Amino acid sequence: MPKKEKNIGITAKKEENMPEWYEQVCLKSEVVDFGTVKGTMVIRPNGYAIWENIKEYFNENIVKATNARNAYFPLFVPESFFHKESEHAEGFSPEVAWLDKEVTGEGERLAIRPTSETIMYDSYSRWIQSYRDLPLKINQWCNVVRWETEATKLFLRSREFLWQEGHCVYETKKECKDETIKYINLYAKLSEELLALPVLVGKKSEKEKFAGAKATYAIEALMPDGKALQCGTSHELGQGFAKAFNIRYLGKDEKKKIPWQNSWGLSTRLIGGMIMTHSDNKGLVLPPKVAENKLVIVPIIKEEKTKEILKKAKDLKNKLKKFNPIFDDRDEYTPGWKYNEWEMKGIPLRLEIGPRDIAKDQAVLVRRDTGEKNFVKTKDLIKKVPKILEDIHKNLLEKAGKIIKDKTITAKKWGDVVKSIRERKLVKMPFCGEEECEDWIKDKTGGATSRCSPFDEKLKKGEKCLQCGKKAKYTAYFSKSY
Amino acid sequence: MPKKEKNIGITAKKEENMPEWYEQVCLKSEVVDFGTVKGTMVIRPNGYAIWENIKEYFNENIVKATNARNAYFPLFVPESFFHKESEHAEGFSPEVAWLDKEVTGEGERLAIRPTSETIMYDSYSRWIQSYRDLPLKINQWCNVVRWETEATKLFLRSREFLWQEGHCVYETKKECKDETIKYINLYAKLSEELLALPVLVGKKSEKEKFAGAKATYAIEALMPDGKALQCGTSHELGQGFAKAFNIRYLGKDEKKKIPWQNSWGLSTRLIGGMIMTHSDNKGLVLPPKVAENKLVIVPIIKEEKTKEILKKAKDLKNKLKKFNPIFDDRDEYTPGWKYNEWEMKGIPLRLEIGPRDIAKDQAVLVRRDTGEKNFVKTKDLIKKVPKILEDIHKNLLEKAGKIIKDKTITAKKWGDVVKSIRERKLVKMPFCGEEECEDWIKDKTGGATSRCSPFDEKLKKGEKCLQCGKKAKYTAYFSKSY
Repeated sequence: MPKKEKNIGITAKKEENMPEWYEQVCLKSEVVDFGTVKGTMVIRPNGYAIWENIKEYFNENIVKATNARNAYFPLFVPESFFHKESEHAEGFSPEVAWLDKEVTGEGERLAIRPTSETIMYDSYSRWIQSYRDLPLKINQWCNVVRWETEATKLFLRSREFLWQEGHCVYETKKECKDETIKYINLYAKLSEELLALPVLVGKKSEKEKFAGAKATYAIEALMPDGKALQCGTSHELGQGFAKAFNIRYLGKDEKKKIPWQNSWGLSTRLIGGMIMTHSDNKGLVLPPKVAENKLVIVPIIKEEKTKEILKKAKDLKNKLKKFNPIFDDRDEYTPGWKYNEWEMKGIPLRLEIGPRDIAKDQAVLVRRDTGEKNFVKTKDLIKKVPKILEDIHKNLLEKAGKIIKDKTITAKKWGDVVKSIRERKLVKMPFCGEEECEDWIKDKTGGATSRCSPFDEKLKKGEKCLQCGKKAKYTAYFSKSY
Repeated sequence: MPKKEKNIGITAKKEENMPEWYEQVCLKSEVVDFGTVKGTMVIRPNGYAIWENIKEYFNENIVKATNARNAYFPLFVPESFFHKESEHAEGFSPEVAWLDKEVTGEGERLAIRPTSETIMYDSYSRWIQSYRDLPLKINQWCNVVRWETEATKLFLRSREFLWQEGHCVYETKKECKDETIKYINLYAKLSEELLALPVLVGKKSEKEKFAGAKATYAIEALMPDGKALQCGTSHELGQGFAKAFNIRYLGKDEKKKIPWQNSWGLSTRLIGGMIMTHSDNKGLVLPPKVAENKLVIVPIIKEEKTKEILKKAKDLKNKLKKFNPIFDDRDEYTPGWKYNEWEMKGIPLRLEIGPRDIAKDQAVLVRRDTGEKNFVKTKDLIKKVPKILEDIHKNLLEKAGKIIKDKTITAKKWGDVVKSIRERKLVKMPFCGEEECEDWIKDKTGGATSRCSPFDEKLKKGEKCLQCGKKAKYTAYFSKSY
């Protein structure tokens, strides 16, 4: 008899209780689990496969494409390194986890890296001698630790996470700035092309920029609950770190010079944003390009024609091999049970084949995103499958784009801002850019912060900050955030 | 004028001062650097590319090929987890680095993982319910920390290193044992096929086995100085951890059962073994399969025909693209200077093309391993390059195999053992297998330990342990080791 143990569906509704729904989707799709140590997570094989696909895309289209190279720097950072750049030290000190001095017996405290600017630039100061060594572009894939005191959330905020951090050194300020922006645009491209996740791209405010940066650029996704999720950042570091770590190079003119630096990072947080955006009340919805298995084949085995159906289904499995199909011929589960399981796990396409299909020399392709059924002649499958996968990607991207569009409000006056934030919208407004004003906005709206200032928005002449009435510096997005 | 700054060759000789020579090769080839924190290392892009090639081979031929899947578990291990398996706790306790309790404020001490058995099996105990969940095969790529008190050495012994650790759970003891051995054989294959590094494969003694294992299998490479280097291990864990972490499954017969486990790991240490074995007094020698750039193209630019030569060289660069050639047309260095640099960095093949070659429609291919020059018609290059690369691999493997052969002594009596160890040989002898006897051997030989007992060696009837004279249990290799 088919068994029904284990596979219990998502019991919370996305539209009613997003936090509970999100957690259930993450856990029941077996993408991630809670670690035993508070605030940590276990990235399970279903989730790690997504990260590997992100890494592969990233290595090809961002690391290689910009002539950067991968490397690996130590986990431990001496305390004195942090203090060399004072803003950086201040920004990170509340979240740093330290090694027990009794155990290590080292002269000074050692931090577990929360980010690697300092440890890397110490090496850079020895490696960089001449203009011939520039630009230096190094990326590393690693774990980082930030001892969060706020409530943690799977993927979105955890005490340890995986990320990449790129760290470049340039001869000129212009080259540095141009590339800082180029990297954030490449992040936006990755997010849309690979994860079907449209993002806002822009510059962070003075208050929200990275500790030690001159300017920070970010990609921000907008979740269905109206909260923004910062998914990746690129920092123009100026010459501050170079000065602090004594990075100097001999120019072509034989003079000693101080170079310009940037850093850029993108983490497993992005996976959380992707899950929250695309998934539904049946479970995970995976954009086809990051799905390890693009489809699952379920032969409908009844009393009749069992052998023939299994044979045909196996033929199709071989024919569709490049889509890395799961072949589910387990006989202890009903087809319906299997459909639920693979929908929960987010497989983009399901191929059903039963007695009636055999007779018609067809198979049924069922889309995970829409549930739409396509009856396809078996000879056409090899053409049809990639087409539908492409359609799924487009549909997910469009739907997510519509969330941003629907939730974006261009505020005309301060009252609009307060009202829109209360209604969980993303508010676009002229902003003075000042830290004090941003504190006020946060306070008066019950938590909204500036997300970013889009590159392509120009202020009209004479526009004023909607909160304080001073001259506006730029247009900014405000919303609550994760 | 061509400059000669920076690139100063290796000043120590491999045959005279191996430790100094090894360190210079590692540093000057820019494969690895010292970290600022004592005992740590920075894996530079030239070195990380080797690790990425190892990972790629491993994921394809070991993870995928055995139906394992990659995942990621937390860095922090609660102290109580270690103590659940007492031998394991005892084996690792001297080298564990702990988090500062003041900072984390957690109830119990948290360790930085020295290995992940305990943290993973805690999750496994929740994930495994039924025979349907078995075998469970998970691999993770990560950093681990062992706070070494012995002197550290680049790649060979460092306080943090990168590795993979596979952790499987099986229904039966037999399946578990078979697979434990299968993994160690796959490691040997990787070592030979990819790194041209022949290894001994066998079982570790009671004294040398992993803390918490029933049996440990290892691959051991033999360095040119006669010291063995343990490069990878596979552990039969029995049911000890399953009992300690309460991993149980419901069998087909509806009865609760205790499963069987193994774990297997291979680290960046292997890179050190590869470097020490193949490299020479000119610098690094990279086996072609792990070399990021299989060749470097050096156009010989003199006054005459500069344009023509550069054009032809660029044509060849495009033609040989799949070998990812470095194209060195820098005009501030002489060809000789460039040869030294790329030899130091271990590029397997150098292609030179100058005025005389243009006239003959040929190029010169120079092998890094032997220095041999091959004059090749340009139209034949695309065929000839992979052939020579294959030859280089074979030659390196053979040369390294000869080291093992030349250094291996089959001892007939105890005096042979002492003498051979003094002469930095690898000694094969019948051994009783007892811990006390092994301690004696170490003591009397000034440091030799049992490396492994080869699978294919059978004892002759009545053979006795050469040290204690008791009945021999198996044939064992003894030598000093890293």
